[in-house]
Amino acid sequence: MEYGAKSLVIGLDLGGTNSVFGVVDSQGEIIATTSIKTQAYPSVDQYIMESVKAIKQIAEQVGGMEKIRAMGIGAPCGNYYKGTIEHAANLVWAKGIVPLANMFVNELGIPVVVTNDAKAAAMGEMKYGVAVGMNNFVELTLGTGVGSGIVANGQLIYGFDGFAGELGHMIVEPGGRPCGCGRKGCLETYCSATGAVRTAIAMLEESPEATSLRDIATDKLTSYEVYKAAMAGDTMAQEVFKQTGRRIGIACANIATFLSPEAFIFFGGLAQAGELLLRPIEEAYNENVLSLYKGKARFLMSGLDGAKAAILGASAIAWDLK
Amino acid sequence: MEYGAKSLVIGLDLGGTNSVFGVVDSQGEIIATTSIKTQAYPSVDQYIMESVKAIKQIAEQVGGMEKIRAMGIGAPCGNYYKGTIEHAANLVWAKGIVPLANMFVNELGIPVVVTNDAKAAAMGEMKYGVAVGMNNFVELTLGTGVGSGIVANGQLIYGFDGFAGELGHMIVEPGGRPCGCGRKGCLETYCSATGAVRTAIAMLEESPEATSLRDIATDKLTSYEVYKAAMAGDTMAQEVFKQTGRRIGIACANIATFLSPEAFIFFGGLAQAGELLLRPIEEAYNENVLSLYKGKARFLMSGLDGAKAAILGASAIAWDLK
Repeated sequence: MEYGAKSLVIGLDLGGTNSVFGVVDSQGEIIATTSIKTQAYPSVDQYIMESVKAIKQIAEQVGGMEKIRAMGIGAPCGNYYKGTIEHAANLVWAKGIVPLANMFVNELGIPVVVTNDAKAAAMGEMKYGVAVGMNNFVELTLGTGVGSGIVANGQLIYGFDGFAGELGHMIVEPGGRPCGCGRKGCLETYCSATGAVRTAIAMLEESPEATSLRDIATDKLTSYEVYKAAMAGDTMAQEVFKQTGRRIGIACANIATFLSPEAFIFFGGLAQAGELLLRPIEEAYNENVLSLYKGKARFLMSGLDGAKAAILGASAIAWDLK
Repeated sequence: MEYGAKSLVIGLDLGGTNSVFGVVDSQGEIIATTSIKTQAYPSVDQYIMESVKAIKQIAEQVGGMEKIRAMGIGAPCGNYYKGTIEHAANLVWAKGIVPLANMFVNELGIPVVVTNDAKAAAMGEMKYGVAVGMNNFVELTLGTGVGSGIVANGQLIYGFDGFAGELGHMIVEPGGRPCGCGRKGCLETYCSATGAVRTAIAMLEESPEATSLRDIATDKLTSYEVYKAAMAGDTMAQEVFKQTGRRIGIACANIATFLSPEAFIFFGGLAQAGELLLRPIEEAYNENVLSLYKGKARFLMSGLDGAKAAILGASAIAWDLK
């Protein structure tokens, strides 16, 4: 297939383990892809050099760099305004503030933009997923932590410093579970995949109830194991999803007072539980929300293919660049 | 003074008692004003007829209707998208859904837009007040209730249905004080002027402490009386502001995870307490907020003259109309 000049974008899903590059067309098809190990390079210069090689290689497959309009990067601690990643504790070569976008611009000669993975997911959703045509929605990514991307008036909210949208750190239970952020009771301590497992472990300790969850060592327990048990009819495992969903629903009721979104969209490992999670979310939302909002918002699973979502999301923020 | 064609806007502050009209220039000066009694008319048609008379009269003072570009209305339950006021329980002629903007358009032949008073205040702040040049901020109006106007990316957030920005109904204390909305623990039950008085009354009941607040019958107690006592050195009255401020600060810490605003701006009766309220707000905010946001946001009193603010706010939403 022949592509027009500047008719394609590159998405880079910069994760702690792999950096996955994809050339994406306007329909959201990934037409060429490759990856490198994120942490195999001791310095950011070497990381950039290897990345540029990888990018040029996939660009060749689609007719060369002149087909590429821009690049979007979804990265931990990515700052959209500055094009930096800032204090990304998990990346060996990224101590302090790394001007990632500018470094790529210098090598590639195309516009490059950075944001965090959850904001990228929301943009991907709006460009290629279930949020096509929506101007006001909230995407919550329920993985190891809880991330969020918030779209209002058809635009991502970045806040004045680029760091808006950390809904995983709304405090939903003052004095509650300790959070990695150093505070207590953050949404993600209850409603991430990890948080759901904490709930399961707490239930196992507090209740003598028979449950297949006891067949798994607690340090081996994952949200996927809890999901499988729930689907097989295990009452305690179902209760874990019910409590987790209700917490999310109540948090969404507070989020509604801010945005009154058309939809809440759930992405990530835990969200794959589908109705098991969505039903208690919606129920708790409508029980707790201001009557003005009752029954209005939709609760949806992401429409992005999990494996491709991060690249699509990163690519989505690149389309509007000039 | 001679004004150019379409160089002025009209602001209408539609309150439960008075409807105040002002002709406003681009500098935020109210150059002509008049008012009518909001509820003196049994039907919306009669209200519109009297309003149109009032508008034409002040327009004459500045050179006629051809000088007027558009009109903005700040009204309870105003819906920006539809130009309606919806279920405004306090207005005798406004049962159900009233297409207020269209009714004025038909009579005046200029664009007319409606929003609620708190959103109008935020627009006024951005156009004429302390938020000039800010693109991301939250305005909280602390009056009988708590209203809010949220600006992200330089635009007011209306949400998908026009009813975003009801931060007064964030639940800050699950199972807490009963709210007029039928739920419990909403921010406004603690942090409106009325909420601060409820806090004072609760303290008077719970503590034997000597305080000048006991000299006032509880049904006569107002936030202004508490303010005067606090300024005169009354410890309990000061504690009321401290607790109220801390509640607001903790709520703002949660709001930050959404928007990461440049500033929180406070407007309305209770906000006039100034530092007495702002200091505990800022203190509790920085103690409770995610470290990423610590020390970044500013806490400001509105820069709008209280008496003119509602008209200026209403007029501010009219400038961008075509």
